Amino acid sequence: MKIKIINPNTTQSMTDKIGAAARQVAAASTQIVAVSPQHGPASIEGHYDEALSVVGLLDEIRAGEADGVDAYVIACFGDPGLLAARELATGPVIGIAEAAMHAASVLATGFSVVTTLARSCIIAEHLTRNYGMDKFCRGIHSTDLAVLDLEKPDSDAYRIVLESCRHALAADRSGAIVIGCAGMTVLCEQLQDALGVPVIDGVTAAVKWAEGMVAIGLKTSKHGDLVYPIPKPFAGELARFTQTENR
Amino acid sequence: MKIKIINPNTTQSMTDKIGAAARQVAAASTQIVAVSPQHGPASIEGHYDEALSVVGLLDEIRAGEADGVDAYVIACFGDPGLLAARELATGPVIGIAEAAMHAASVLATGFSVVTTLARSCIIAEHLTRNYGMDKFCRGIHSTDLAVLDLEKPDSDAYRIVLESCRHALAADRSGAIVIGCAGMTVLCEQLQDALGVPVIDGVTAAVKWAEGMVAIGLKTSKHGDLVYPIPKPFAGELARFTQTENR
Amino acid sequence: MKIKIINPNTTQSMTDKIGAAARQVAAASTQIVAVSPQHGPASIEGHYDEALSVVGLLDEIRAGEADGVDAYVIACFGDPGLLAARELATGPVIGIAEAAMHAASVLATGFSVVTTLARSCIIAEHLTRNYGMDKFCRGIHSTDLAVLDLEKPDSDAYRIVLESCRHALAADRSGAIVIGCAGMTVLCEQLQDALGVPVIDGVTAAVKWAEGMVAIGLKTSKHGDLVYPIPKPFAGELARFTQTENR
Amino acid sequence: MKIKIINPNTTQSMTDKIGAAARQVAAASTQIVAVSPQHGPASIEGHYDEALSVVGLLDEIRAGEADGVDAYVIACFGDPGLLAARELATGPVIGIAEAAMHAASVLATGFSVVTTLARSCIIAEHLTRNYGMDKFCRGIHSTDLAVLDLEKPDSDAYRIVLESCRHALAADRSGAIVIGCAGMTVLCEQLQDALGVPVIDGVTAAVKWAEGMVAIGLKTSKHGDLVYPIPKPFAGELARFTQTENR
Amino acid sequence: MKIKIINPNTTQSMTDKIGAAARQVAAASTQIVAVSPQHGPASIEGHYDEALSVVGLLDEIRAGEADGVDAYVIACFGDPGLLAARELATGPVIGIAEAAMHAASVLATGFSVVTTLARSCIIAEHLTRNYGMDKFCRGIHSTDLAVLDLEKPDSDAYRIVLESCRHALAADRSGAIVIGCAGMTVLCEQLQDALGVPVIDGVTAAVKWAEGMVAIGLKTSKHGDLVYPIPKPFAGELARFTQTENR
Amino acid sequence: MKIKIINPNTTQSMTDKIGAAARQVAAASTQIVAVSPQHGPASIEGHYDEALSVVGLLDEIRAGEADGVDAYVIACFGDPGLLAARELATGPVIGIAEAAMHAASVLATGFSVVTTLARSCIIAEHLTRNYGMDKFCRGIHSTDLAVLDLEKPDSDAYRIVLESCRHALAADRSGAIVIGCAGMTVLCEQLQDALGVPVIDGVTAAVKWAEGMVAIGLKTSKHGDLVYPIPKPFAGELARFTQTENR
Repeated sequence: MKIKIINPNTTQSMTDKIGAAARQVAAASTQIVAVSPQHGPASIEGHYDEALSVVGLLDEIRAGEADGVDAYVIACFGDPGLLAARELATGPVIGIAEAAMHAASVLATGFSVVTTLARSCIIAEHLTRNYGMDKFCRGIHSTDLAVLDLEKPDSDAYRIVLESCRHALAADRSGAIVIGCAGMTVLCEQLQDALGVPVIDGVTAAVKWAEGMVAIGLKTSKHGDLVYPIPKPFAGELARFTQTENR
Repeated sequence: MKIKIINPNTTQSMTDKIGAAARQVAAASTQIVAVSPQHGPASIEGHYDEALSVVGLLDEIRAGEADGVDAYVIACFGDPGLLAARELATGPVIGIAEAAMHAASVLATGFSVVTTLARSCIIAEHLTRNYGMDKFCRGIHSTDLAVLDLEKPDSDAYRIVLESCRHALAADRSGAIVIGCAGMTVLCEQLQDALGVPVIDGVTAAVKWAEGMVAIGLKTSKHGDLVYPIPKPFAGELARFTQTENR
Repeated sequence: MKIKIINPNTTQSMTDKIGAAARQVAAASTQIVAVSPQHGPASIEGHYDEALSVVGLLDEIRAGEADGVDAYVIACFGDPGLLAARELATGPVIGIAEAAMHAASVLATGFSVVTTLARSCIIAEHLTRNYGMDKFCRGIHSTDLAVLDLEKPDSDAYRIVLESCRHALAADRSGAIVIGCAGMTVLCEQLQDALGVPVIDGVTAAVKWAEGMVAIGLKTSKHGDLVYPIPKPFAGELARFTQTENR
Repeated sequence: MKIKIINPNTTQSMTDKIGAAARQVAAASTQIVAVSPQHGPASIEGHYDEALSVVGLLDEIRAGEADGVDAYVIACFGDPGLLAARELATGPVIGIAEAAMHAASVLATGFSVVTTLARSCIIAEHLTRNYGMDKFCRGIHSTDLAVLDLEKPDSDAYRIVLESCRHALAADRSGAIVIGCAGMTVLCEQLQDALGVPVIDGVTAAVKWAEGMVAIGLKTSKHGDLVYPIPKPFAGELARFTQTENR
Repeated sequence: MKIKIINPNTTQSMTDKIGAAARQVAAASTQIVAVSPQHGPASIEGHYDEALSVVGLLDEIRAGEADGVDAYVIACFGDPGLLAARELATGPVIGIAEAAMHAASVLATGFSVVTTLARSCIIAEHLTRNYGMDKFCRGIHSTDLAVLDLEKPDSDAYRIVLESCRHALAADRSGAIVIGCAGMTVLCEQLQDALGVPVIDGVTAAVKWAEGMVAIGLKTSKHGDLVYPIPKPFAGELARFTQTENR
Repeated sequence: MKIKIINPNTTQSMTDKIGAAARQVAAASTQIVAVSPQHGPASIEGHYDEALSVVGLLDEIRAGEADGVDAYVIACFGDPGLLAARELATGPVIGIAEAAMHAASVLATGFSVVTTLARSCIIAEHLTRNYGMDKFCRGIHSTDLAVLDLEKPDSDAYRIVLESCRHALAADRSGAIVIGCAGMTVLCEQLQDALGVPVIDGVTAAVKWAEGMVAIGLKTSKHGDLVYPIPKPFAGELARFTQTENR
């Protein structure tokens, strides 16, 4: 089975770590392909970055379809372009926020999200509503860390995130932490050990959920709302997105 | 005052009609600029089209900021890129679905949406939730008309839309119709006369609401969630979206 | 176009200021009529005051209908009698809380309300739900100012309201302030300058929204829930409200 | 114990029947006082009627407070003036829609409302939301009967209501019927026998719930939102509503 | 009329006090039967205790049906087995959390729950949602008292609960307190006197509500979702629950 | 890894089929243990059956804890005893309704549930709310098949379920089917082939989701609401459930 993980930002070091984390948990028979798009922002912090990251994301889904990919993971906590990707894809497409929140809702009666900059909190809040997870999410906490700070070896990221998790658990009376950035994947295990509660990283949660769906023969519905895009001309630089025939 | 209306698809004939409708209702002192982007889909029917239309939309917002635009209207019923546009813009940014639904909620206790293809209904449904308008929207009805069918002089669009409105009013016990496509703007007056209920077109509703906000000095909040995008590199074809300094 | 603003309390000094604020923003071609009813409370602070203010409000709507009014604004933040007024009126009827909250939801992802006495907060809270604005309203804050304190030149109202706005923005992580009393209209511009966020006054927001709706030919729906009242006898002092024929 | 039932319309024949129904179920030690106000509409069908009925209703609450009433029932299915009445009253104030819906939610997992004119359905719908009963209410059905039709001996009311109940139970998969008009109280027992499901009349449900609350010493909260109205002048015909001192 | 109160835990001293409180408020003609089951936990603190208490509860409902009971009260604040009990019972079945919350929503615009251990808060929170009472419940507060601490004469329970109520009223801006444990019934009157707000005990509230429903001829709906259980074999120790014929 | 699947009814033939379905999709390294409890109903059709099935379910969880089970699946579409089981278990506990609904929400924008008897629909409806899946579930359809009818070789179950699925997809405009009974697991593949949409069986969905969670080190939160049950005496036949020490 082939699972393609798309980090929608262009920072390759983050993509490498995401890929490594995924390979560590994937089944032996699963091939993990982790990529960053050619076009797009170096990190995703706000609606503008997110909206523009979708071009590169869809490039990678298109390529994946040609390449026989069985399922996709969108590895940015805002789950950018999720429904657009589902229109294009045959197999399941799972966002890491989605995977983490759904898992958290099964492991605890309420969870807290710990994320990067304050401006990203609103994106997470909207996702909790879109996914029906607002009943379970008791708080969304920013650490004031920029996404790329997490890539810096000398950043104090672990300590700052740990402290924010501790605060969140107490303030929200939560039973689990959802880690709100793909760049924090590497911190997850250490945090879980330190905190003694489930600390859920969306990358690994999404990979395993996707693997499971593929294993039981589930694909994205092509009946109704998520049918393949209608063929029509795309102008200018986006001409490559023209679908020429009904799939 | 300068209001820029961005039709996020590339069909100029539709943009021309949108611009004309806007000019007809705008105040004498308001300059209406109606544009289509250079890059993007010929029509927007689904999440894929919508997601990709945002690139061209943001190009036009960027240009508008340089050009002293006071407010923007996004003239596609899915309101694509609304929050991304708000990050980039100084003045108000209003989507036509948003403007129409909010107005409808003030004129009737419940409204129905009549739109194009069935696959677009889910986009409208999600918007009703995002805007808090799900309490007022009693039904979303497709006419099975493609967006570009509305541009064909010999299409039976008026009759089909009229029939769908009649059905919607009865089935939903609604008091008003929200017209679910910028391409239907031209039908609006005739429909209202025939139906005897408010028939709300988002283009004109958005233009007047935007005019009003500018008149009383209101702009997009730059405190908190919608602050200007953070400067960071954009790679590849999207390099022009790099913000180089904090606004 | 004629817009009638009804301040449902009987304090003429407040009505005068409301009228002045409205005239300042209205189009040159718009005639603003600002009135207080003959019967009713000197200020509206609670459900009892509000319920009783509706008699005078409906007197003024009745008079307005005879007088060719195109649209009405109800200038009390509880929007008393809104749906009753809509049954009676032909043109749009907009409440100032409604206008301010809807505008705020377009300018920021979340707003805070700053109002007068603590007992008025529950009224605002109920309105946020009625209008679908509870998703956007992050907090409702009382200043412990009585409505008529705002009319006293030597009250410390501006400073108290400013402080409450500052607290609200921080505590709620909001991007905009909705001013929760028609008596605060005059403070609005100064507050916006001091705070650097949109500070939305419902009087001006409602006047411009109403103007816009009239300009594009929208009226209150007379199909279904908001049809004119059914003719029937009213007894006693309310006999003047008897409708004698079907409109 | 003294329970005052206020039929907010001025049709004495309906008040008499309401009083009789209440006396039939009240405890021997309970004194039932059933009144219509002096001022107001002959029947309540829409928001306009409802809003104006509140004046007479509050007159009767005022009188009741002077008269040592222990609890009040508002006997119109729209529960007009409920929160205003609670501000004025010391004991519990219960609306008949409220009492019937709460009881229905305990006797079945879902109920249907059967009411009079179609224009009243929106009032019932709003109440279900206000009371948190929208999770239980599966449908609101109009019979197209005017309220005063129910007072006419030769109306076909029973048969029409029965048929509407049958339809409602099947269409909504409901387990109970809530009778949506105080004028239907007299039909209730016969309907319940014919239908074999709980048919809940708000008048009797409210009387018994009120009796129970008084028996265990519960009164309307005078802490916070529902404290007595603030003393202030009322002008014109409403001068009698002036509260002169803090209670 | 016979009302059976089932304390689903096996602590007889608590059952005795519950019965006494019920008898104090019941009508002279009402026979109160208060029991604890033979099988089950000594106290109910969490989902595990609650789930297992349902066996004994249903034993008592079965016995009650044979015994001509008119209505049942489930005297544990988690309302365990409520819908299962309703399937089995002919008359109304009311949970004490349900009765208290519904009453509170009529006496105040918002209430706070004060309960025992922190782990019980989630059960109360879920109930507020199930009953549609989440709009009224502004906070759920634990006292860190174990249920059986309330039975100890030398526990400091009254003072601790009082303090928690005081905190809740201020923090939540609530107008009433709902007492979140049947073991606190005895404290209720004293708390209400001390706090000056309605303090609602579910046991007495449920008894009076049940009495009222029986008095007006209301029973659990046997149409649709709550029909009697389908006859089928139960194995092992639960064989006694086998229903052998359709009721 | 050891996953224990508990069919909470006592019908061994159904348990065998559930176990077989699970083994077919489980990883080679996963040991599937599928059991029915000793005590309880032959099938679960309603709240009474469901409540009583929890005793046997918890027996099996207790045994599982002693036996080193890594995760549990509750194989009845009502997910009985889910939170009680989570208190007792160390590893994840997943209900089949929960697993199927969450997966469906990722594969389609809306799904329909097709289940057995009409009386079971309310249980599914409540679950959609508890899980936040009510935004995705567009309809719940009964087939009027008893659970044990599904075990009869000559029942027409496949054809009846297929027809109900077809109706549901059209009536609800859904993109996926959630199969609403563990007894229908065997029909799933054939249904998916016939319908051309995802047909999601909770047994296989839950097994794979559980496998995934165990693989990435996630367990049930033991911080806060789901901590192990508090030691306390259980009386009578339930004495075996006494926890004697804090885990």
